[in-house]
Amino acid sequence: MLNGDRCPKTMLSIKDALDAVEGKWKLLILFALSSGPKRFTQLAKEVNGITDKTLSKELKSLEGNQLVKRVVYDTFPPTVEYSITSHGMSLEKVIEELHYWGLAHRKLIIGK
Amino acid sequence: MLNGDRCPKTMLSIKDALDAVEGKWKLLILFALSSGPKRFTQLAKEVNGITDKTLSKELKSLEGNQLVKRVVYDTFPPTVEYSITSHGMSLEKVIEELHYWGLAHRKLIIGK
Repeated sequence: MLNGDRCPKTMLSIKDALDAVEGKWKLLILFALSSGPKRFTQLAKEVNGITDKTLSKELKSLEGNQLVKRVVYDTFPPTVEYSITSHGMSLEKVIEELHYWGLAHRKLIIGK
Repeated sequence: MLNGDRCPKTMLSIKDALDAVEGKWKLLILFALSSGPKRFTQLAKEVNGITDKTLSKELKSLEGNQLVKRVVYDTFPPTVEYSITSHGMSLEKVIEELHYWGLAHRKLIIGK
């Protein structure tokens, strides 16, 4: 794995990445936003199974890591939209590889 | 992302993958095992910051998903070693992409 490059620095970078996208939800939220900006309620619907409280918490964490941008439009009442940043889009390959691996894993372990 | 393939099935496969490798530690444990089988104490040392309790719990979960194999050698006292399975090794690309992304993320956000 990683051409035998197993120095502490390699593990550190994996740790950094995992710290930013840790948990069940963050990558799913980013994936949902990759098709375009969305309002909170739209997101809550698309990311099946997430509670409003968790979605709100995860969005804040994603904002803190500059993966998601929260834009408030000056309408009445104000409209809030969430969009994925270019830094968030740079997770594309990670998500793609997880997708392919998830397909293989389902076949092998979950057996459906 | 994923060539606009945003059907529920795509999200399901990402979810399957995240369920299997969820959390801070599982991918780091797999990465540590990718260089060869290891005993519990070796693993605990290599995966910096993990407690024995968490390592034990994570190894059980990884075994359940056939990502890690626990082998008991008939010595006195018995020796136990953990090794990564071929299914675990198939996460190589996910871990590689996380590594590259983690490097970029550290430069951009953590700034070190």
